[in-house]
Amino acid sequence: MPEKEIKKDKINLHHGSGGEHTTKLLNDVIFKYLANPILNQKHDGAFLDIQGKLAFSTDSYVITPIFFKGGNIGELAVNGTVNDLSMCGAIPKYLSLAFIIEEGFDHDDFVEIVKSIRAAADKAGVYIVTGDTKVVQKGKGDKIYINTSGIGVIHEKANIHIDSIQDGDALIINHAIASHGMAIMSEREGLKFESEILSDTANLNKLVESLIDKFGNQIHFLRDATRGGLASVLHEITAECKMGVHLFDDQIPVDTQVKSACELLGLDPLYVANEGVFVCIAPNEIAKDIVQLLGDLGESPSIIGNVSSSVNGKVILESSYGGKRVVSPLIGEQLPRIC
Amino acid sequence: MPEKEIKKDKINLHHGSGGEHTTKLLNDVIFKYLANPILNQKHDGAFLDIQGKLAFSTDSYVITPIFFKGGNIGELAVNGTVNDLSMCGAIPKYLSLAFIIEEGFDHDDFVEIVKSIRAAADKAGVYIVTGDTKVVQKGKGDKIYINTSGIGVIHEKANIHIDSIQDGDALIINHAIASHGMAIMSEREGLKFESEILSDTANLNKLVESLIDKFGNQIHFLRDATRGGLASVLHEITAECKMGVHLFDDQIPVDTQVKSACELLGLDPLYVANEGVFVCIAPNEIAKDIVQLLGDLGESPSIIGNVSSSVNGKVILESSYGGKRVVSPLIGEQLPRIC
Repeated sequence: MPEKEIKKDKINLHHGSGGEHTTKLLNDVIFKYLANPILNQKHDGAFLDIQGKLAFSTDSYVITPIFFKGGNIGELAVNGTVNDLSMCGAIPKYLSLAFIIEEGFDHDDFVEIVKSIRAAADKAGVYIVTGDTKVVQKGKGDKIYINTSGIGVIHEKANIHIDSIQDGDALIINHAIASHGMAIMSEREGLKFESEILSDTANLNKLVESLIDKFGNQIHFLRDATRGGLASVLHEITAECKMGVHLFDDQIPVDTQVKSACELLGLDPLYVANEGVFVCIAPNEIAKDIVQLLGDLGESPSIIGNVSSSVNGKVILESSYGGKRVVSPLIGEQLPRIC
Repeated sequence: MPEKEIKKDKINLHHGSGGEHTTKLLNDVIFKYLANPILNQKHDGAFLDIQGKLAFSTDSYVITPIFFKGGNIGELAVNGTVNDLSMCGAIPKYLSLAFIIEEGFDHDDFVEIVKSIRAAADKAGVYIVTGDTKVVQKGKGDKIYINTSGIGVIHEKANIHIDSIQDGDALIINHAIASHGMAIMSEREGLKFESEILSDTANLNKLVESLIDKFGNQIHFLRDATRGGLASVLHEITAECKMGVHLFDDQIPVDTQVKSACELLGLDPLYVANEGVFVCIAPNEIAKDIVQLLGDLGESPSIIGNVSSSVNGKVILESSYGGKRVVSPLIGEQLPRIC
């Protein structure tokens, strides 16, 4: 019986061996599409010449499906880590990239993902400088998982810190919430809407850099509202800063299609994941200027509430009719593997 | 029917939600056992104050079994990335840590792994400064996968580069090969030997720092012989430096038990993974001094061969009887998921 032929169009365990197949996969895909002067050194690690205070962040991406309306796991993996660095007030510079691939994964899909990674890195202005590729047996993964870690240089005017948050500070978000989560859910549930819901995956570093360029340390705090949605990120913030938050219900933008999809599936958009929404906390006096700047940069920003020491640790949602309710923390899992 | 109770002793999808269960897992395990001044900031990324030229590296660890003789996946994940940085001539400083956990994974095992991570980080003198935890459904992972990425400061006397390698340079390794791979294989195959074979997982940064302290840029090149073993790492080096390598067969140390296990399983120790072996390439004139220093530091080093421009790209194994054979690159996968 002839030795089992290695199918050319699938990734298999040999590609994770560290031997010839690994070398070929790296040369044919990784080094081909991600080439840059640092990655090209092909060392175990990258040599970086970088000055200033740094931010360092990591995230693994296990989203399913890996291709979705508005993006794919590769693009998400770049944007997600770029954004985490941005939320530290850093200018993202370098990313690492590590794949865990399930045996049998389609080679063409892998190439498409790597190409998206390159495109997203170019758009954000970062280099992929070092990486790793592992292959696990069928049934021990799910197509592909990606980890990116990133290094950024802290903007010299930035002083983003939980302790910088002041009583009365305004909360501003850059655009409508819940698109990413509902794009993924629509895909999973096979829902059709008049217009497609697209993930809002995007790099936020250019927006953040502009904000800090202009407002410096008046930008007190930044955080992107990813897993667990806006509600979860606000709960994290209130837990850490020992103050509460008042939200203005009718100022929190949700696109019509997204709202419909949420209602259909019985989901509260406040808990639905975003991949391009961030919360900016800054003095009320400059809130409108921040909205103006973000609007000029093509966003649809909104002042959604303010920080209040009178509701320690709580997130209070106020309707335009004066109704109030406490937004509870997310218990359990609303949408598994959303990022 | 009552709502399905969440078993306290297993990790489930809720722990990956970004909500309350995630926060609890982080507080009860991650922040508890890995606490340090930088991680304690609990931001999306870590703020680092670091000077000099940097090295940056990443690796995902998918080893099975996750607990093995001589170590576990957590310890391995720290040592592996510490070692990759060391091989760049860097002094490792900061690691990121990202988990992909399969639903149903034992909570106690998770705690044990995190404790090992702390112990390994302390031993290597690095901080875990930022992290991520994802949970995937049962059958979409295999207990736990770990990514670590690391940042190190290049030793000011170091100039480790493939172009630094000179014709005639000696190859020195620090101790016997193939222990890690055979420890894992023995475990998988249920083999018993008179004395147990232990993985050689260890942090190499202290050894490398001592070497560079003493020999500076005379240390031309360093690489750890992990996945694919000594043969694969030599093939990578020869492919990049456009020279070849002569190996002295009887100078390559393999422990007796390891040799027996290799013979039993029909494996060539040259291709078997190590987690604590590195190849140091340096001028022949200082090879004995390097051996002396490594010996003083508790290693069992050996001069195993030299670089030769006369055998471009080839790895030639010479026996003490004058026999020669070409060591071929590793084709296919010898030991899947060895790291």
